[in-house]
Amino acid sequence: MAAPGQNVAVVVHRAGDLRLENRPIPEPGPNVNLHLSILAWHLLWVLGTAHVLLSQCLRRSVFLQGTFPPFLAEVLLRMHSVGICGSDVHYWQHGRIGDFVVKDPMVLGHEASGTVVKVGSGVTHLKPGDRVAIEPGVPREMDEFCKTGRYNLSPTIFFCATPPDDGNLCRYYKHSASYCYKLPDNVTFEEGALIEPLSVGIHACKRAGVTLGSKVFVSGSDLSASRLQKAKEVGADFTIQVKNETPQEVASKVESVLGCMPEITVECTGVQACIQAGIYATRSGGTVVLVGLGPEMVTVPIVNAAVREVDVRGIFRYCNTWPVAIALLASKQINVKPLVTHRFPLEKALEAFETTKRGEGVKVMLKCDPTDQSP
Amino acid sequence: MAAPGQNVAVVVHRAGDLRLENRPIPEPGPNVNLHLSILAWHLLWVLGTAHVLLSQCLRRSVFLQGTFPPFLAEVLLRMHSVGICGSDVHYWQHGRIGDFVVKDPMVLGHEASGTVVKVGSGVTHLKPGDRVAIEPGVPREMDEFCKTGRYNLSPTIFFCATPPDDGNLCRYYKHSASYCYKLPDNVTFEEGALIEPLSVGIHACKRAGVTLGSKVFVSGSDLSASRLQKAKEVGADFTIQVKNETPQEVASKVESVLGCMPEITVECTGVQACIQAGIYATRSGGTVVLVGLGPEMVTVPIVNAAVREVDVRGIFRYCNTWPVAIALLASKQINVKPLVTHRFPLEKALEAFETTKRGEGVKVMLKCDPTDQSP
Amino acid sequence: MAAPGQNVAVVVHRAGDLRLENRPIPEPGPNVNLHLSILAWHLLWVLGTAHVLLSQCLRRSVFLQGTFPPFLAEVLLRMHSVGICGSDVHYWQHGRIGDFVVKDPMVLGHEASGTVVKVGSGVTHLKPGDRVAIEPGVPREMDEFCKTGRYNLSPTIFFCATPPDDGNLCRYYKHSASYCYKLPDNVTFEEGALIEPLSVGIHACKRAGVTLGSKVFVSGSDLSASRLQKAKEVGADFTIQVKNETPQEVASKVESVLGCMPEITVECTGVQACIQAGIYATRSGGTVVLVGLGPEMVTVPIVNAAVREVDVRGIFRYCNTWPVAIALLASKQINVKPLVTHRFPLEKALEAFETTKRGEGVKVMLKCDPTDQSP
Amino acid sequence: MAAPGQNVAVVVHRAGDLRLENRPIPEPGPNVNLHLSILAWHLLWVLGTAHVLLSQCLRRSVFLQGTFPPFLAEVLLRMHSVGICGSDVHYWQHGRIGDFVVKDPMVLGHEASGTVVKVGSGVTHLKPGDRVAIEPGVPREMDEFCKTGRYNLSPTIFFCATPPDDGNLCRYYKHSASYCYKLPDNVTFEEGALIEPLSVGIHACKRAGVTLGSKVFVSGSDLSASRLQKAKEVGADFTIQVKNETPQEVASKVESVLGCMPEITVECTGVQACIQAGIYATRSGGTVVLVGLGPEMVTVPIVNAAVREVDVRGIFRYCNTWPVAIALLASKQINVKPLVTHRFPLEKALEAFETTKRGEGVKVMLKCDPTDQSP
Repeated sequence: MAAPGQNVAVVVHRAGDLRLENRPIPEPGPNVNLHLSILAWHLLWVLGTAHVLLSQCLRRSVFLQGTFPPFLAEVLLRMHSVGICGSDVHYWQHGRIGDFVVKDPMVLGHEASGTVVKVGSGVTHLKPGDRVAIEPGVPREMDEFCKTGRYNLSPTIFFCATPPDDGNLCRYYKHSASYCYKLPDNVTFEEGALIEPLSVGIHACKRAGVTLGSKVFVSGSDLSASRLQKAKEVGADFTIQVKNETPQEVASKVESVLGCMPEITVECTGVQACIQAGIYATRSGGTVVLVGLGPEMVTVPIVNAAVREVDVRGIFRYCNTWPVAIALLASKQINVKPLVTHRFPLEKALEAFETTKRGEGVKVMLKCDPTDQSP
Repeated sequence: MAAPGQNVAVVVHRAGDLRLENRPIPEPGPNVNLHLSILAWHLLWVLGTAHVLLSQCLRRSVFLQGTFPPFLAEVLLRMHSVGICGSDVHYWQHGRIGDFVVKDPMVLGHEASGTVVKVGSGVTHLKPGDRVAIEPGVPREMDEFCKTGRYNLSPTIFFCATPPDDGNLCRYYKHSASYCYKLPDNVTFEEGALIEPLSVGIHACKRAGVTLGSKVFVSGSDLSASRLQKAKEVGADFTIQVKNETPQEVASKVESVLGCMPEITVECTGVQACIQAGIYATRSGGTVVLVGLGPEMVTVPIVNAAVREVDVRGIFRYCNTWPVAIALLASKQINVKPLVTHRFPLEKALEAFETTKRGEGVKVMLKCDPTDQSP
Repeated sequence: MAAPGQNVAVVVHRAGDLRLENRPIPEPGPNVNLHLSILAWHLLWVLGTAHVLLSQCLRRSVFLQGTFPPFLAEVLLRMHSVGICGSDVHYWQHGRIGDFVVKDPMVLGHEASGTVVKVGSGVTHLKPGDRVAIEPGVPREMDEFCKTGRYNLSPTIFFCATPPDDGNLCRYYKHSASYCYKLPDNVTFEEGALIEPLSVGIHACKRAGVTLGSKVFVSGSDLSASRLQKAKEVGADFTIQVKNETPQEVASKVESVLGCMPEITVECTGVQACIQAGIYATRSGGTVVLVGLGPEMVTVPIVNAAVREVDVRGIFRYCNTWPVAIALLASKQINVKPLVTHRFPLEKALEAFETTKRGEGVKVMLKCDPTDQSP
Repeated sequence: MAAPGQNVAVVVHRAGDLRLENRPIPEPGPNVNLHLSILAWHLLWVLGTAHVLLSQCLRRSVFLQGTFPPFLAEVLLRMHSVGICGSDVHYWQHGRIGDFVVKDPMVLGHEASGTVVKVGSGVTHLKPGDRVAIEPGVPREMDEFCKTGRYNLSPTIFFCATPPDDGNLCRYYKHSASYCYKLPDNVTFEEGALIEPLSVGIHACKRAGVTLGSKVFVSGSDLSASRLQKAKEVGADFTIQVKNETPQEVASKVESVLGCMPEITVECTGVQACIQAGIYATRSGGTVVLVGLGPEMVTVPIVNAAVREVDVRGIFRYCNTWPVAIALLASKQINVKPLVTHRFPLEKALEAFETTKRGEGVKVMLKCDPTDQSP
């Protein structure tokens, strides 16, 4: 257990400047009504003049409790496992990703799980001691995207470790209770942390319409034999190592290995030639999902895609994936454990980041709880 | 303009007890930070002992402003037109609908439009003077239904004039800003109020998959020649007046009049024989949407529906319909104006309710703004 | 190999009258153009007067080849494995199922696989020696259901062993080539035959929208401990043995065992109490799929289903499931092999039917190829 | 009425070579059984040696009638109105479109309607005298695309006036009965002929998910004031005339005129800058449908589309649109009549083609029935 107020955090200050810092332990909201009640109790016999304002405070607290508070309800978490993502390294190395610029010091980390230590008022589905996985994106307003179930597209969304929003690579972290999901006993903290990258895959599958018996071409780390080996380990039926083939040749190879054209291509590189190969490879009426992002502008065989009604769909993060992922993990339908290749205690975060930067292994996991470094 | 604090409201106290009352004009939230700031300013040099608690208050206000406040943002509205719904009359007559019981006095009304007179902090899409239609259902928490875009199914949703939540049949009413929709200049207040019942139809159509060229059988007011006439007026291509036909005979008649079996049936009565007719009438592979609600248990030709893959789908209110309705009204694709057959000033609400109870006309509209009683 | 023209078949003549008979080995069509060509060649120098008629024949053969022949293309199959279905037993015992009455002797069997021995002209995707699974339903006309991909709803569809259409429980059988699907080397004939009952499950899942991480309540053989055990063996996470519970109590048990309400219920009994339990058990916004068929009319809690937007959807057989099933079997995502509990050579078909009738085991398989009785 | 056997047709021989020719009046199939029966009757007492072959012919005819004939059933039509499409002019001018090359003389025309004059055996839904619209694409085999309701993607589909398949710009034409749709009395032949181009729009709308209240940006003839005027006439709410704007500027203009970003863009030009504008203009979560086809390879802002989950979907012709179009026309929900700006009798086809080539008016209609040149 950390000393009161002690909250080690991994903070990027600007490009190249990554630090371990101590931050205050946050309070989960909203306890407005509680605080105001105590405040009122203390002050009521002290004050006469301020009573109009105070009564407004009290009405507000009633309002907050009566009408919408669960939207504000937070939990305080003792962090357990946080994976390092390529974007964390990128913010450290470059101080920005596209238009998102690190202007003020920002805590990194968004692939995370931990234990509830305190709940704000109005939280009913979680209690101290619950082990949870954290969905890092929390919409800030009920806009059209939220209302229609695509909250990942909400332009004002809070997102861990995307400037200016702090992430959760630290000891203590508070988060919207609605975006913390209780882990079943048979799902580990590290599996819980891996739900974040897994969610990208789930969302891609949902956008592609992957269903029972779908034939899927995943265009990914196809230059690296060891990564292809890992892909086989976690479920790929066939792998192809690509060298100098043209996009059409890659498409041909896919059809030949699979015995038919895949209905779906999940393109994870963002490389122009791979996007082209994905379009050529996909069966008429199918879908190419773009997961990897590369250059802003890309040249694609648009007529080939259009006249064969091959859809091209991108994804932005994910939405509504945590319950799906937990069900998949709890029922052992997928196995993400082999993906964790390195572990470091939080104190060695800088070393962990260097390891990730060198491209070693697959997933580097930081262990934030000094009393429990188990998976 | 009403006198300060004067807010006439139509309130049901219990079965049979409907009153015109005066209620305080509410304040749109959240102005917590404003109020607390003023409070703090006044008190800081007065108090020493309370400063810890106060600073927590201030932090809370910052939290509220910094993280999620738009979920709480409200607007105060000067109500203009509010339609009387069958459920309003039912609460007045019976004091309950199913498990929803009027235990405390409740303001009626949920088919409503008005003008923004004040906005809470964090409101950016509305400003005083904007004419808006009000969606009466506002989710209170970000549960699985909200997250997936089906917030109407959220069990803790706030809903105007469903106990214990007050409605908006009054002069001044505050509402979640996100659920107030700006009306274009060419859409009247009454059209805005009629978006609520229209939304039931839109939601039914969405659930049924009504699209370009769909053939739809609406099973509704088929006993009343005058209502059938009104149906023709607002868009029905054919009407059938039903008398003593069996469900199968009704189905036959529908096919004969339409020239084919409809892909979709929208059942608006809840009567068992009509649900049965709806199933028999619907083309294989089609959908019966249940809009009307009758007895809890109903006997249906389940094998007929199942082996022809005729889906049976209910609706609960609506979600995501206001933008659709406004687009339809603004582009003149539908005409709801003929549905308003009676108008009363708010002061004559009791008379208006009596008229509705007698089943006269189609829609009775209450005019809440004494300075503007136009449609 | 059977003697020329020898084709043992299991034929139902009327209720209670099941026979092993010899039928002619059919010819796969269409060989019109071939036959006419030979015919023409032989006759052209013989005949003068008939030449106008003949030339019309030849034009027709060109037409058939030029325009639509693949629709007619058939293959002749040497049958390998055919499962006995409850409907086969029902036709034997009762001579009818609903409106489908056995008026003329009919070959039974529709869960089948075999080997191509001959192909009609125009067949390009199959050749003699190919091992195939047989989809028993073949649409006869391009009606609206066919055009929209729901050919199972086509009222004039051909269907094996549904009067008056013969099934394939015999040695040699011809079938539409388009509805024979090549089996990969790692899928056995018996797995191929089991694609038919598996298709019912796949179609139910598609109609229900089962996808990654769906929580599904299958309401089936819940009275029999041994069948529940088999269910666990082939994939159920939990099982519940039901005794005298009310539908609401069953629903409660499901939620309690699963840890939440299932989004989907697949109801396989057709029993009224089970349909009711399925509705109560299903999460708001979810779907109940009716697979089992019981009495024509059933009393259901329609308001409960409607206001929670729980859809009720039936299925009629299946469509577009063979490719899905083959992909699932080839990639070992499902295991149907434990379902085969009994095997009989075709000659002992009557004994096999008696075994099925007694309800022994799960699936009884008939082995039609005397030279290969392997699974 | 034309003389027996007289069938004027508009035939392209090669680039630049368009002719009016006389072709034989075709016979609607399949009358195989009839013809063979007569043949058999005549020959049976003439021949002894050929009787085995003949009996096979007869069995075949029985097979054809008994099992699948409706797939082959055709009707003979007396053509009434046939529109000239840009592709007709293109085949005339260039002798090819992409890989489709005019090698043999080919009748042009695929936007057509006419009257049934004769039906093949097995046709039940049409009879002589019926006025029909013709869907020009008829699948030749029941492949995976047909089975799943996307028959337009079937690579072996027959399609009027796409080499080598003849079109219907002639006096008499036979077509698959299943792809001829009876016109209601209140839909004219010209409206029937216009269903073909209308189908492109309907299919684009279906692929885009256009539904009640959708905001749609149609990117089309935005350089021509007169065409924009015509667009307004047939339903556009706003029009924008584009000059030298960048794609981003066009997107801005669309948002400004519409009051919001459209959920859907229907891109009808195929021009790279317009595709780019379409992507920028479309709301997050929306869809760009590519109707116009330009160069094979196009450079697009792929990251902008991907991270906003704007889908890019092409269309290839259409499927399942005729019933929709007829419903829309019969119920007067759309008005295509103003699109016909020129009419020529079939004899003046070359003049009509010259007019179309010069880009005059919108739609040039050829009137094929000398006895009825009405719309």
